[in-house]
Amino acid sequence: MRTIDINCDMGESFGQYSLGNDEEVIRYVSSVNIACGFHAGDPTTMDRTVKLADKHHVRIGAHPGLPDLQGFGRRNIAILPVEAYQLTLYQVGALKAFTQANGAKLSHVKPHGALYNMAAKDKQLATAIAEAVYQLDPTLTLIGLSNSALTNAGEALGLTVAHEVFADRTYQSDGTLTPRHHPNAVINDEMQAIEQVKQMVLDQRVTSTTGKVIPIQADTVCVHGDNPHTLSFLKKLQDCLQQSGISLTSNK
Amino acid sequence: MRTIDINCDMGESFGQYSLGNDEEVIRYVSSVNIACGFHAGDPTTMDRTVKLADKHHVRIGAHPGLPDLQGFGRRNIAILPVEAYQLTLYQVGALKAFTQANGAKLSHVKPHGALYNMAAKDKQLATAIAEAVYQLDPTLTLIGLSNSALTNAGEALGLTVAHEVFADRTYQSDGTLTPRHHPNAVINDEMQAIEQVKQMVLDQRVTSTTGKVIPIQADTVCVHGDNPHTLSFLKKLQDCLQQSGISLTSNK
Amino acid sequence: MRTIDINCDMGESFGQYSLGNDEEVIRYVSSVNIACGFHAGDPTTMDRTVKLADKHHVRIGAHPGLPDLQGFGRRNIAILPVEAYQLTLYQVGALKAFTQANGAKLSHVKPHGALYNMAAKDKQLATAIAEAVYQLDPTLTLIGLSNSALTNAGEALGLTVAHEVFADRTYQSDGTLTPRHHPNAVINDEMQAIEQVKQMVLDQRVTSTTGKVIPIQADTVCVHGDNPHTLSFLKKLQDCLQQSGISLTSNK
Amino acid sequence: MRTIDINCDMGESFGQYSLGNDEEVIRYVSSVNIACGFHAGDPTTMDRTVKLADKHHVRIGAHPGLPDLQGFGRRNIAILPVEAYQLTLYQVGALKAFTQANGAKLSHVKPHGALYNMAAKDKQLATAIAEAVYQLDPTLTLIGLSNSALTNAGEALGLTVAHEVFADRTYQSDGTLTPRHHPNAVINDEMQAIEQVKQMVLDQRVTSTTGKVIPIQADTVCVHGDNPHTLSFLKKLQDCLQQSGISLTSNK
Repeated sequence: MRTIDINCDMGESFGQYSLGNDEEVIRYVSSVNIACGFHAGDPTTMDRTVKLADKHHVRIGAHPGLPDLQGFGRRNIAILPVEAYQLTLYQVGALKAFTQANGAKLSHVKPHGALYNMAAKDKQLATAIAEAVYQLDPTLTLIGLSNSALTNAGEALGLTVAHEVFADRTYQSDGTLTPRHHPNAVINDEMQAIEQVKQMVLDQRVTSTTGKVIPIQADTVCVHGDNPHTLSFLKKLQDCLQQSGISLTSNK
Repeated sequence: MRTIDINCDMGESFGQYSLGNDEEVIRYVSSVNIACGFHAGDPTTMDRTVKLADKHHVRIGAHPGLPDLQGFGRRNIAILPVEAYQLTLYQVGALKAFTQANGAKLSHVKPHGALYNMAAKDKQLATAIAEAVYQLDPTLTLIGLSNSALTNAGEALGLTVAHEVFADRTYQSDGTLTPRHHPNAVINDEMQAIEQVKQMVLDQRVTSTTGKVIPIQADTVCVHGDNPHTLSFLKKLQDCLQQSGISLTSNK
Repeated sequence: MRTIDINCDMGESFGQYSLGNDEEVIRYVSSVNIACGFHAGDPTTMDRTVKLADKHHVRIGAHPGLPDLQGFGRRNIAILPVEAYQLTLYQVGALKAFTQANGAKLSHVKPHGALYNMAAKDKQLATAIAEAVYQLDPTLTLIGLSNSALTNAGEALGLTVAHEVFADRTYQSDGTLTPRHHPNAVINDEMQAIEQVKQMVLDQRVTSTTGKVIPIQADTVCVHGDNPHTLSFLKKLQDCLQQSGISLTSNK
Repeated sequence: MRTIDINCDMGESFGQYSLGNDEEVIRYVSSVNIACGFHAGDPTTMDRTVKLADKHHVRIGAHPGLPDLQGFGRRNIAILPVEAYQLTLYQVGALKAFTQANGAKLSHVKPHGALYNMAAKDKQLATAIAEAVYQLDPTLTLIGLSNSALTNAGEALGLTVAHEVFADRTYQSDGTLTPRHHPNAVINDEMQAIEQVKQMVLDQRVTSTTGKVIPIQADTVCVHGDNPHTLSFLKKLQDCLQQSGISLTSNK
């Protein structure tokens, strides 16, 4: 039986503001990345989301972001590497406390939004984030964009690294994601996205936008939870995977 | 040789804003309470202050506060007990991460400002805070106002509790602090403050404002670091204590 | 033709977070109170909401709140009167800028949530808020709980004051709102709420929970926009009012 | 009698945190730029600083910044032009309220830190900021880096623009500031800085780092207030200017 890890961002509500459909989506994923209060989330939401994840036996990860609630952590901020180290440590530590208090286990760290994208390209920033994870707990897994500066930095430190791929994004022939402003950057056809997931996870290959089939390390697949179609896509994906004899990675 | 624990709030700077004289004051105390980013402090300041405390071999504590940077955590906010539980967990977890990354150890938790004062009187709030500490790590010490709702709550849960007394505040004959708006609430005479410290720590008694000598549990003495006279007072206090054969509690 | 002013809080979204159904609700009200960034709202939301209000020819008001985004401004914070003065001035000034830039007009100020409730009872706080409004622009209308410390303070300063009543809350025989924790505090029956609105606005009277009919000054009626039933209630209310020959106050 | 405008950033304290020496520095400048709560300042500080400026008869300006208190508005944030428009409007409106409440007058707007630097180069951002100023009040003066995208944008809209030069920074032969990482970017010699000020203001020329004398539009000179030497420099500058028959621009 082949297994696949599907991860989704969760716990992105804030105070009175509700975002996402965590209670439903969590039934179709094996790992969740929980916002830590800088770009989204707050102590109340973190507590509730850790309890939810623990109940559903999914892997619990911290999802640290830039300090920009209004911009949802999606606007680049020119922070120093040492600041990236410190804000990662702070946020992951805060989330870890909720896992400990709930008798659960922190499994991984995945930077969010602009921090994720900057760390995919900037070696110093990537190293700073990886060091924060390593120094806090060297058994944590670091999730980063497949074959990026961040996965390189994690591997250089000896961390377990999960190379992340995307179900609904296309890849260029050099293995990088097609930039978002390109017309064919996003895969809107659900069956095409599902086929790409299977290809990436089973074959560790992907068909690029030029038609060329290229190798890709696909340890975990990201799905986006803040999308009205997420739930129907996830159900379809699960059905297709089961028919192909693939199951979600178990946390037990 | 008698020992005494003296604690001081530290790490209260924020970004470009500098507060306190941590590098000097830390030489005369045995425990520090480090702000965790809600009422003061930020990830950069926390990292720097944990390193400073580790270098000086003082006990490192978390100093969680209300989410009110502008009010410095000194304005009461009508939070629910569960919110007190969650914001304590969040902040203590964040600080703990810095101790772990620096190979240091988190020793205690002391709520700050309005949170401290509310928890001294409100049993539900006190219990919520004590539970956060206990669930994160039951070996942590909880510091609260001597003989308050907070120390009661900590003891009820089985936590090690340090009853806190103040060098520069007077006590009423019922054992409570003289409220700040009373003319004789604060001890301005340094020698009188030092005598009160010695009386409290050595005899576990204090002479109240009515002249009556009353019992008081004095496990740790608070000195305030954001005062221009702090440093000279601390030097004088250390001299007087040494002459009386009393030394600071060691962290080794 | 009798007229009635119906006001509703709006612009309570924040960044990525959406709240309320402003585009629909605004068609059934004559005044809107726009959040100013402290308890909800942000510069982008304020700009969009002022434009929306201007397009629909409703009266535009500032809705300043306590600095507590996580608590949505609903948790009491022990601020000083001078701080209430300053945070009112700041927020109303910020919103006024958006009205000026859009060629619209700021018409009124209504404090939000805990600030509203505290100012209804605390004379010093009420006076501080009223002074901020007066000093910024003495032609602004101040909306406060009918016959409260806030309306008194506004009238004492010479401001135009609008006494606010609630469609869905019951009144006690002394003219005060039934506290929320009472079982009959809220009117769930839509027709009963509509009858109360008509009674209050047409007769300036309300039938209290004891059955006694008491006088009440009802210059403006508050409806809550963050409720799934708001829209259907507002449509029904508008129909009933029209049948009784009552129309919404015009802003023209 | 020749006159010169010297401007300084003020009101950069926040809550418990004090920054700068506004009460002294204000005696030696003719214009102040007051922080508006995003990168520094808060409603209490703004109120106090507007009163101080009004008392000293200096020109009062708004100093809007990026929403980054921890980074003091000095870290670039990738905001959209429309967001720059909105945050400028918000902050300038907030400060304007304090001038109105105090019977004073808002005279100018100068973006702060990273916002200033980004707007000096980015035409779209510059235009957005200039439009916010213009739409709020077309009689306001916009201060920007001399001969930059921001001054161009302001002039294109018909705003009064003040080209800003720096007393303690050197200029390259193309008229731009020597970047800060260059060894000779900053003028540490006070007399050299004073000579540069006189040369710029009297001759509208500056001697660049290559020795070449180049034209520069110098409508206002920036001095930095958060420097321990500021006060002594300002006293010396004032003496030298008086000896040369130059006085500070009057606000009367």
